[in-house]
Amino acid sequence: MTDEREARMGLCAIRSGGDVALTKLVREEGAREVWDYLCKRAPDGVHARKARAVDGARLQRLTGACGARFLMPSDAEWPGRLNDLSWSGKVGTFGGEPLGLWVLGEADLGQLCERSVSIVGARASTSYGEHVSAELAFDLAAHRHTVVSGGAYGIDSCAHRGALGGSGKTVAVMAGGLAEFYPPGNAALIAEVSRSGAVVSELPPDQAPSRAGFLIRNRIIAALSLATVIVEGAVRSGAQNTVSWALSLGRPVLATPGPVTSALSVTPHRLIRDGEAVLVSTADEIMDAVRPLEDSTERRAWDEASTEDRLTAHEQKILDLLPLRRGKCVDDLCDLSGEPALEILVVLSRLQVAGLAREVRSGVWRAVTRTPVG
Amino acid sequence: MTDEREARMGLCAIRSGGDVALTKLVREEGAREVWDYLCKRAPDGVHARKARAVDGARLQRLTGACGARFLMPSDAEWPGRLNDLSWSGKVGTFGGEPLGLWVLGEADLGQLCERSVSIVGARASTSYGEHVSAELAFDLAAHRHTVVSGGAYGIDSCAHRGALGGSGKTVAVMAGGLAEFYPPGNAALIAEVSRSGAVVSELPPDQAPSRAGFLIRNRIIAALSLATVIVEGAVRSGAQNTVSWALSLGRPVLATPGPVTSALSVTPHRLIRDGEAVLVSTADEIMDAVRPLEDSTERRAWDEASTEDRLTAHEQKILDLLPLRRGKCVDDLCDLSGEPALEILVVLSRLQVAGLAREVRSGVWRAVTRTPVG
Repeated sequence: MTDEREARMGLCAIRSGGDVALTKLVREEGAREVWDYLCKRAPDGVHARKARAVDGARLQRLTGACGARFLMPSDAEWPGRLNDLSWSGKVGTFGGEPLGLWVLGEADLGQLCERSVSIVGARASTSYGEHVSAELAFDLAAHRHTVVSGGAYGIDSCAHRGALGGSGKTVAVMAGGLAEFYPPGNAALIAEVSRSGAVVSELPPDQAPSRAGFLIRNRIIAALSLATVIVEGAVRSGAQNTVSWALSLGRPVLATPGPVTSALSVTPHRLIRDGEAVLVSTADEIMDAVRPLEDSTERRAWDEASTEDRLTAHEQKILDLLPLRRGKCVDDLCDLSGEPALEILVVLSRLQVAGLAREVRSGVWRAVTRTPVG
Repeated sequence: MTDEREARMGLCAIRSGGDVALTKLVREEGAREVWDYLCKRAPDGVHARKARAVDGARLQRLTGACGARFLMPSDAEWPGRLNDLSWSGKVGTFGGEPLGLWVLGEADLGQLCERSVSIVGARASTSYGEHVSAELAFDLAAHRHTVVSGGAYGIDSCAHRGALGGSGKTVAVMAGGLAEFYPPGNAALIAEVSRSGAVVSELPPDQAPSRAGFLIRNRIIAALSLATVIVEGAVRSGAQNTVSWALSLGRPVLATPGPVTSALSVTPHRLIRDGEAVLVSTADEIMDAVRPLEDSTERRAWDEASTEDRLTAHEQKILDLLPLRRGKCVDDLCDLSGEPALEILVVLSRLQVAGLAREVRSGVWRAVTRTPVG
């Protein structure tokens, strides 16, 4: 019997990624069993024919030749979040967790994706959208968030470039194999992404991207990240597909608005209007949205213990008066605390520096979420 | 005893607009009683001193001299919607329905405001915001909606100009009296507004606008209109005050997004993010929001009877399959109806022409609200 890794490489090679039935079978019967059955005992059919044509040794050579490694779910660096695709719904006819991933890059993929946000949007973007994408990615990266995107022209490129510019980490998920990057014009950028972060694909190195490949790839982008941000998208936008994956995973979808005079604002505005996406203007607002979802307990410990525990009783009292939403005006805080406005403002500015309070508009303050929701 | 109209003119002249206590007293005791009390029997105080200084005959002369008339709630053309201020909350320390209004313009104010939308925003607007304000106002006016605004520079001016350009009706609500328009640079525009629509004020003709006057004026803008649209506003925006009035009245607040790179997008984006405003990009979306609130029964009758009643059984069947939100794709409609896609598309396009269905994105259709909500 072939070993688990070979079996999963073979299954990926027959383009089983996104194949709900085959993925379910592997989940229930095991990759080796399914692969051996397809190669040896299955009656003649599309899958069996493809499986019997796979040359395992050649796959290994190709993987080594492009400098990639093949990851599978039992590997320590496998991003656990990908497994959520095993219960999330289908989008179109596709679904299911990936059976394996080819990865380029020294970094541990699991760690890279622990605090990650995907930024996606139009290929034919405007300079406004490109600016927003790059700025958000830069700021997220500077705050130790990994930026996940698809390596495409337009919004994707700017997200990767912004993150690299912020000396941060970024992950590109390819719709084709890793031997040749797509689109060719972004090859140098994607190679740069692989040096500090990772470039990943569900397909063997020599396989070209297909139309379906992009839709299947989008589910990996959504599943790898805590939240998906859509920056620009026309009325028929590929980014809508990534959004659908994020929604099926129950992950937050965020959208940046733009001029109503731009055709590329249509999809973000529709998502916000329909309540499918939350409007975000800044990386701060994105981090507000993902903070409750971050599973790094160290970070939470750092956020809460090291700042809140050091508060004076007086600071804690004012902090407790602040609501988490909308905010309260300083006058109300004076009434509630029985203290003069000047005193309150001094405490508020200390809380703001500690990242525990924020002035939502002039004279109106709210607390910053400190504990995970739900 | 003075007559009702003289009493109310006098009460307006002592700047009782927005004075919650005095307005309540008038509501309970009657304008003539309160006015006579202030003029004759009240102990010496601010209100009494002001009342005794009012020269009623001079007020009449001033009103006539600038070509205005003084309206009071019992007049047939009094916009009934203003009376909602009698139960809505205070904003800051102000509140209450106006006790009367000076009006310039031939048109019937009540009819003018029957289907009205206010558009407000920054005075120091950008060319983007001015374009959006003018476009929305033009389109609303072209669809027989009156555009209400404050006659200020920036977004307000563009709203009035856009409506005038669409050969539509527009109403300017002044923070000072009607003898001299404020700001002086907009005097020609405001005069033009009075020719086809109306210019109104709660203050006697010779009174200059005060800081408080603008806040009190904003409640008239919000109360006259079915919904308030905010186009641009910086972090400290006067438009926020009009929004607060609309919210206190339970009227829809709509906001147009803009570039996140613009400081003037901050208030609209915050309102959308906080769920206080609905994102709108087009006049169609504004009309969708106000349609359920329009109290013109003729219009509703026209909308429903004359189109829906003329539908064939087949068209009605497809219409009944369409949801009011999100939309359904043509494939699903085929499944549900058991009919071929081509047939469905023909019906959908007929329903679209009748204003009963809309393609929300490619291949996805929804019904257009036909009945008032609630």
